[in-house]
Amino acid sequence: MTRAYNFSAGPATLPETVLEQAGAELLDWHGAGASIVELSHRGPEFMQVASEAEADLRTLLSVPDDYAVLFLSGGATTQQALIPLNFAAPGQAADYVVTGHWGKTAIKQAHPYVSANVAADGEAGGFRDIPARADWRLSDDAAYVHVTANETIHGVEFRDTPDVGDVPLIADFSSSIASEPVDVSRYAMIYAGAQKNLGPVGVSVVIVRREPLERSGQPRAPIFEYARHAQSGSMLNTPPTFNWYLAGLVFKWMLAEGGVEEFARRNQRKADALYAAIDGSGGFYRNEVAPAVRSRMNVPFFLHDDGLDKAFLAEAKEAGLISLKGHRALGGMRASIYNAMPEAGVRALVGFMDEFRQRHG
Amino acid sequence: MTRAYNFSAGPATLPETVLEQAGAELLDWHGAGASIVELSHRGPEFMQVASEAEADLRTLLSVPDDYAVLFLSGGATTQQALIPLNFAAPGQAADYVVTGHWGKTAIKQAHPYVSANVAADGEAGGFRDIPARADWRLSDDAAYVHVTANETIHGVEFRDTPDVGDVPLIADFSSSIASEPVDVSRYAMIYAGAQKNLGPVGVSVVIVRREPLERSGQPRAPIFEYARHAQSGSMLNTPPTFNWYLAGLVFKWMLAEGGVEEFARRNQRKADALYAAIDGSGGFYRNEVAPAVRSRMNVPFFLHDDGLDKAFLAEAKEAGLISLKGHRALGGMRASIYNAMPEAGVRALVGFMDEFRQRHG
Repeated sequence: MTRAYNFSAGPATLPETVLEQAGAELLDWHGAGASIVELSHRGPEFMQVASEAEADLRTLLSVPDDYAVLFLSGGATTQQALIPLNFAAPGQAADYVVTGHWGKTAIKQAHPYVSANVAADGEAGGFRDIPARADWRLSDDAAYVHVTANETIHGVEFRDTPDVGDVPLIADFSSSIASEPVDVSRYAMIYAGAQKNLGPVGVSVVIVRREPLERSGQPRAPIFEYARHAQSGSMLNTPPTFNWYLAGLVFKWMLAEGGVEEFARRNQRKADALYAAIDGSGGFYRNEVAPAVRSRMNVPFFLHDDGLDKAFLAEAKEAGLISLKGHRALGGMRASIYNAMPEAGVRALVGFMDEFRQRHG
Repeated sequence: MTRAYNFSAGPATLPETVLEQAGAELLDWHGAGASIVELSHRGPEFMQVASEAEADLRTLLSVPDDYAVLFLSGGATTQQALIPLNFAAPGQAADYVVTGHWGKTAIKQAHPYVSANVAADGEAGGFRDIPARADWRLSDDAAYVHVTANETIHGVEFRDTPDVGDVPLIADFSSSIASEPVDVSRYAMIYAGAQKNLGPVGVSVVIVRREPLERSGQPRAPIFEYARHAQSGSMLNTPPTFNWYLAGLVFKWMLAEGGVEEFARRNQRKADALYAAIDGSGGFYRNEVAPAVRSRMNVPFFLHDDGLDKAFLAEAKEAGLISLKGHRALGGMRASIYNAMPEAGVRALVGFMDEFRQRHG
């Protein structure tokens, strides 16, 4: 098989040019005599890679100067454990807004360290909508409010930043970071596993306001302290250098393509085309999420007859469209259409869906 | 520059054939239509990569069946924080034998969770020897004894497994794992960041006896629980797939080359040649570690006149020998000669050292 259109939810498709460049310099990085994966993280070669990646991400997301940008090992789940350790006193209240699977995971990881208050929960409605802000039951003394900007499994996305007053707002942006402009200053911290929009799995990006790091938290190992990671430029220990490097190549690609403003336009067109194909299928396909909060990144959909699921997946694969199987929690299909999924890939999927419907409808 | 001999302490040199294979299949893994770095960790392609890597590592190290083999994100430092969380009650005593920088790091990470007893400490002697077992002051009720099998910075290595009776023995094998046969059954847990002998940075290997995992530890986030990682086959969250894959290629390379018995022979020859060049230099070069505990993996050495350090490094680089600068804690030089450093590389280094001495002696 040549390269297919890969709709995996993460690890996810990367720009082909990024993989080509990584492959071309895999044995000898820019004449260093070694691969970037073989060089010391403290040597001049990797220090250049690391600082360019940080600078490029700051440019992409217009990160204010009073925010640290960290590149850490461990995924978003690890950050979900570190958040209370760094931002809450032991047993202090913290508010969680649950709009899907990952919001629940965030609470599980925080549970040993804080009194997690479920301020709002979409589960009764099958996570098909986001509870209205007016109905959130926020605590009086919460250390922070945690939201999931985009729920990868349930396909539900905040379309604007919720107002939580002066309480620090922390958001899991794993599956939508850099998909559109974001006002970082509205958040105390944004975090994201890289494996959807930013690059390979194995590195997480944490964008965090510096000031609160110095004064809050609870007893924890030094390696769990964001402040120490910030002070050391994410080199408190050996960072995942190759993952950081690959993410840096993706950042340069995003800048060259026009930045997050351009990706916001492309992503909206891709999502519009795919939802239109679903909604216009006369019930052959369906997506159950309230239109106002439908994710532009992850589009779960179901065939009217799940007896056709196997044929759909097999024929899609034949057509060069892979990784469309839905998450086991929901079944059905899911198309993840992150920045690196070209519009041509979505057109090919829509074309296949129409053609499949005509044959099996 | 073509590929140099790279003596970096970690991230470190990888087998050229491994990099060539990774490069060749970077855009399309075995006809999957996507890179292995782009495919779901739960898909059949990566599941195959993951299980082969585990099986190969079990073969290489003769891991007994009652041990779990975990592939985790985060480096050895993270494991140093997780060890007390998983093996000790809050504030319980744990014994640490400190034979260099990394033993001290292990205590720092454990400090919030246990009463760390320094059972032996080589610092007064500049970490040039390992305190005799008879002089260790072990606690009566320690949760475990922690040692560092090989100290990467100070170049000090345990040449046999210390007897600590029935107390669980835990060892940081980051810089010597798979360099020679090891009797895993003597340890409750062995852990290693991959970036020295096993592959790229960004994944750690934890080899841990299953039984104690189920009954010990202290309050901790689920993502910090080894038992959960073991139950989920290291897929409690998205693992660092590409790093795991690259490590798996290194395991296959080690097996094809003859396994750890063969590498033990090569490593001994490499170390013997390099120490002989140092000891036979009439004081031009010196290594200060007690011969009985000199590391076969990391050879720190000093020029008799540190005014020559810059010239040594520059001329070595000209000769295709890179990353020889010593750790900032010690200064001088360091040659790391892990499994992937060919004997020809050590011969080239020894030849250069002799020639440099003749010119500058």
